[in-house]
Amino acid sequence: MSDRRALLDVALGRRPPDLAIVGATVADVYSGEWLPWNVEVASGRIAYAGPRSPRTGPDTERIAADGKVLAPGYIEPHFHPWEIYNPASVREVTLPAGTTTVVADDPGMGLPGGPAAFARLVEALRELPGHQYWAPRVPRETALGDHVSPADLDILRDQLSWPDVLAVGEMERWAPVAAGAPHMVASFEAARAAGKRVDGHTAGASFARLVALAGLGISADHEAIDADEAVDRLRLGMWTLLRGSSLRRDLPELARVITERRVDSRRLLMTTDGAGPAYMARNGVTDGLLATVVEHGVDPMTALQMVTVNPAMFLGIDEELGGIAPGRRATMVLLEDRDRFTPEQVLVDGEIVARHGELVAPIPAVDWDALGCRATFADPAVFGDPRLYTATGSGDVRTVPVLRFESTAIARRDDRSLPVRDGVVQLTDAPDCAYAALVDREARWVSHAIVASLFTSLDGVATTYNTTGHVLVVGRDPASMAAAGSEAARLGGGIAVAAGGEVEWSAPLTIAGLSIDAPYAAAVAVDRELGTRARAGGYRFHDALYSLLFLSCDFLPDLRLTPQGILEVKSGAIVEPPVPGPLADR
Amino acid sequence: MSDRRALLDVALGRRPPDLAIVGATVADVYSGEWLPWNVEVASGRIAYAGPRSPRTGPDTERIAADGKVLAPGYIEPHFHPWEIYNPASVREVTLPAGTTTVVADDPGMGLPGGPAAFARLVEALRELPGHQYWAPRVPRETALGDHVSPADLDILRDQLSWPDVLAVGEMERWAPVAAGAPHMVASFEAARAAGKRVDGHTAGASFARLVALAGLGISADHEAIDADEAVDRLRLGMWTLLRGSSLRRDLPELARVITERRVDSRRLLMTTDGAGPAYMARNGVTDGLLATVVEHGVDPMTALQMVTVNPAMFLGIDEELGGIAPGRRATMVLLEDRDRFTPEQVLVDGEIVARHGELVAPIPAVDWDALGCRATFADPAVFGDPRLYTATGSGDVRTVPVLRFESTAIARRDDRSLPVRDGVVQLTDAPDCAYAALVDREARWVSHAIVASLFTSLDGVATTYNTTGHVLVVGRDPASMAAAGSEAARLGGGIAVAAGGEVEWSAPLTIAGLSIDAPYAAAVAVDRELGTRARAGGYRFHDALYSLLFLSCDFLPDLRLTPQGILEVKSGAIVEPPVPGPLADR
Repeated sequence: MSDRRALLDVALGRRPPDLAIVGATVADVYSGEWLPWNVEVASGRIAYAGPRSPRTGPDTERIAADGKVLAPGYIEPHFHPWEIYNPASVREVTLPAGTTTVVADDPGMGLPGGPAAFARLVEALRELPGHQYWAPRVPRETALGDHVSPADLDILRDQLSWPDVLAVGEMERWAPVAAGAPHMVASFEAARAAGKRVDGHTAGASFARLVALAGLGISADHEAIDADEAVDRLRLGMWTLLRGSSLRRDLPELARVITERRVDSRRLLMTTDGAGPAYMARNGVTDGLLATVVEHGVDPMTALQMVTVNPAMFLGIDEELGGIAPGRRATMVLLEDRDRFTPEQVLVDGEIVARHGELVAPIPAVDWDALGCRATFADPAVFGDPRLYTATGSGDVRTVPVLRFESTAIARRDDRSLPVRDGVVQLTDAPDCAYAALVDREARWVSHAIVASLFTSLDGVATTYNTTGHVLVVGRDPASMAAAGSEAARLGGGIAVAAGGEVEWSAPLTIAGLSIDAPYAAAVAVDRELGTRARAGGYRFHDALYSLLFLSCDFLPDLRLTPQGILEVKSGAIVEPPVPGPLADR
Repeated sequence: MSDRRALLDVALGRRPPDLAIVGATVADVYSGEWLPWNVEVASGRIAYAGPRSPRTGPDTERIAADGKVLAPGYIEPHFHPWEIYNPASVREVTLPAGTTTVVADDPGMGLPGGPAAFARLVEALRELPGHQYWAPRVPRETALGDHVSPADLDILRDQLSWPDVLAVGEMERWAPVAAGAPHMVASFEAARAAGKRVDGHTAGASFARLVALAGLGISADHEAIDADEAVDRLRLGMWTLLRGSSLRRDLPELARVITERRVDSRRLLMTTDGAGPAYMARNGVTDGLLATVVEHGVDPMTALQMVTVNPAMFLGIDEELGGIAPGRRATMVLLEDRDRFTPEQVLVDGEIVARHGELVAPIPAVDWDALGCRATFADPAVFGDPRLYTATGSGDVRTVPVLRFESTAIARRDDRSLPVRDGVVQLTDAPDCAYAALVDREARWVSHAIVASLFTSLDGVATTYNTTGHVLVVGRDPASMAAAGSEAARLGGGIAVAAGGEVEWSAPLTIAGLSIDAPYAAAVAVDRELGTRARAGGYRFHDALYSLLFLSCDFLPDLRLTPQGILEVKSGAIVEPPVPGPLADR
């Protein structure tokens, strides 16, 4: 209440503002105009925006902005903040990029500490600079099909009542949704009842499937890979997120939605979909998206609207963020020009948090373990047995299901007949192949596969950074795989590379097995080191981190290594089930 | 749940739709395109919209729409449904006009039966064809200034939790709001906390005042009377409703916001602000607004967006209404052409409710008395005393405050010295003047004034259709005023015209003293009859109904006759207080 009173007093000239930004050209994303306006801030909100000269007082901070552009802070509506970096450290790169508001898909119930940990996390992260919102989803690591239980739904309903929760997170496996999986559909109903959105993931869906998914209540999608797909989604009433990620570089093509198809842009947004650490360090975040589409012919105001007022409307936060107008939070970026989107200064709630690409606001430490983010693992020694990691067979020869990588994320089925010796499938005659094993954190089960065209000369790499949180190990040398797997468990989650049976390099990912509890630079270093070692091991696609991340996921074509075994995604068939692990009886 | 399942089955071609609309050009208000699409409906919602030919079954209804345009039903975001017509009868005119969704400002706590009556009303009206939403507000008929009590706020918070309540209704007296009246501002906070909007009424506010009001959290405004005022509101982040009402014919001028100022139209809406009965019978509702702006150069798609997706976004109902897309309610209008907005057919939830301007869906009867809509009055005989209605004075001459009408709604102060005889101010030498009295329903007080340039030869008119719900009586002949006042009370609310001490014509307004419990035609007849009799009595402006309605309101310039006496609106000063009524001691 007193905050609003301060706004009133400043607006009516009864007291000076805390901050005055003078001489800028304001990007008014509501009217679509560039206005020669001054802005006054009080209590962290915009108290005045208009032509008058500020009535400053002795304590008024002043930013001279002649010749510069003042725009609303950028909103990233669909982000994954656990990609080696964590939701705190990533602000070292999002905030200097002007990405002041981030909606984090996940983890909902996916944290090691469960929903209670998520509640603590949401609360703890409120203290950090920048605006963090959430789109939790139902657990991903469970049986296929309709994997939402009534209890999960109750948890989700509670989360949807929080002001920082704006949507149900993306439903990556849309096939069961389109089949009408009742509990999944009930999760959409829960979102609607709470006045929140339903994020979608409709990669490759036909027009009829898109219609079906929209009809079930999916509000948005970020999976269009060309202009036609984007226009289809838009026409069907979905908020359409144009994606430019490290994994998919479709944004120049997607910009044609505006420049050539000339559709209404009000329901177009932009997203990085959570890019890799090194990629974001190099290419920025939302600032990079803006630069790309403007370079490809999109008008700067239209581009800015796509990352400010449009997502604010989508998310239902347009009275808080997404525009420079009275009452809104004073979260803004100062740009050198209309088409230079990496800000000179970034303000959050009226405080300068970044200047010239550098963070200036301290990011308070987060005690991730106390929040319930640390995963537990069986005794590392249990992971040290080389026999855990190889495919087995009887007789002389076995035909094994092979996951042959065609690109960073796509793996097709390509079975081989391979010799068997001492009960172990041999890779000697298959130089493009490696063993892959997904080992339960508690060592109760192991799923095995052979992967081709991924690593041709890597002895062993283990990573808990995958879509399941278990220990994924790939390599050609079982002893090195064992060393790497054991190291990942010893670290309490992490990445390890081994050669000749010895660990050569490792990094701890103690935050849910996904993220490093260290500054952003550490995440970049992990990403780059893994990339270098992967290339040295024969990796030939563009992002080894993503190839490993998605090897275990259950929605990308065709074969995947999952806790349920080798999964044929399209049919849902289990090609080969897991085998019992060493602690199967515990 | 089963409804959504039906949508899915139809979308995937597993079962035929209930209704197929074939061959139309669909106005896709999301992408801004006109698409040659077919639409399939199931369970009252859109199951499919796209190019395929419907797979109809034996029970599928089919609408051949070749050469026609299918658009979303129109949304009227700011309406007053009690202007002689009532919220049920008005659908006889709104639905055939294609105005399938109406947000009714008021009455919140303003019904005779209070909040409980409002709750019953909201529930009862859900059964009627068309979509009715509400924007309740805090009581209007109370002391000046910050007239929201903590108890009122609790009631409002409860109402804001209902799915049919989308906003807090317009705050007409913005001066106390701008002064920071804490409870009023708390009502805005309550709306924000509920994720709902705050409707505004900022007529004549300076730019700094607009800034102040926007900063306090007013989300929208419909009071701009020219393009400059509208652009100011839009720039400041307010949803800006371009109004074309019977009272103010500003819409052609306001269309310049789009045609000349060329601002972004996404946050522009259109409203009738609840027009008079005869005016709407003649000019339509939203269809009339659309025709006006298109005639003045606005592109038809832009115009349609202003009454469909834009208000749906403003109101937070865009996943239900405002577009033709899967999952939305099948509430649509079929138009003969892109620029002919009075629909050939109107569908609500997949059912045809109007054809060629005629309602075809029955409107169930509403028992208004049972809902708690009937006001109570003191014994009519109490109102029959002529001495109640005249201004009094002592000595020979008195200088009296005069409300001189300059237009339908504006009355300026113009004091006169008038002779006094037997303690009563005489109008013999003031042929342009009449007595005016606002008499408490329970006859505990009476506010008196002299009005000039309103009725010069009318003996007496009484009406409970005013902003207070009490008995407003105007005339030159106290005996006729008494007859009319007594008749209005006898009717249990109503309008009465008397001459020579006898009632000549009257109409019952038993619904809250504001509306007639009869079909829409009866409201039109009352409007016209009053207009005819007013003109015969010397009325020279364009709407006698509105002049009487607003005589008692506390926000229009300059002098008003209120329950607190004669009010000078700008200063808030009481020029003359009420006197005790005959039942002052009860």
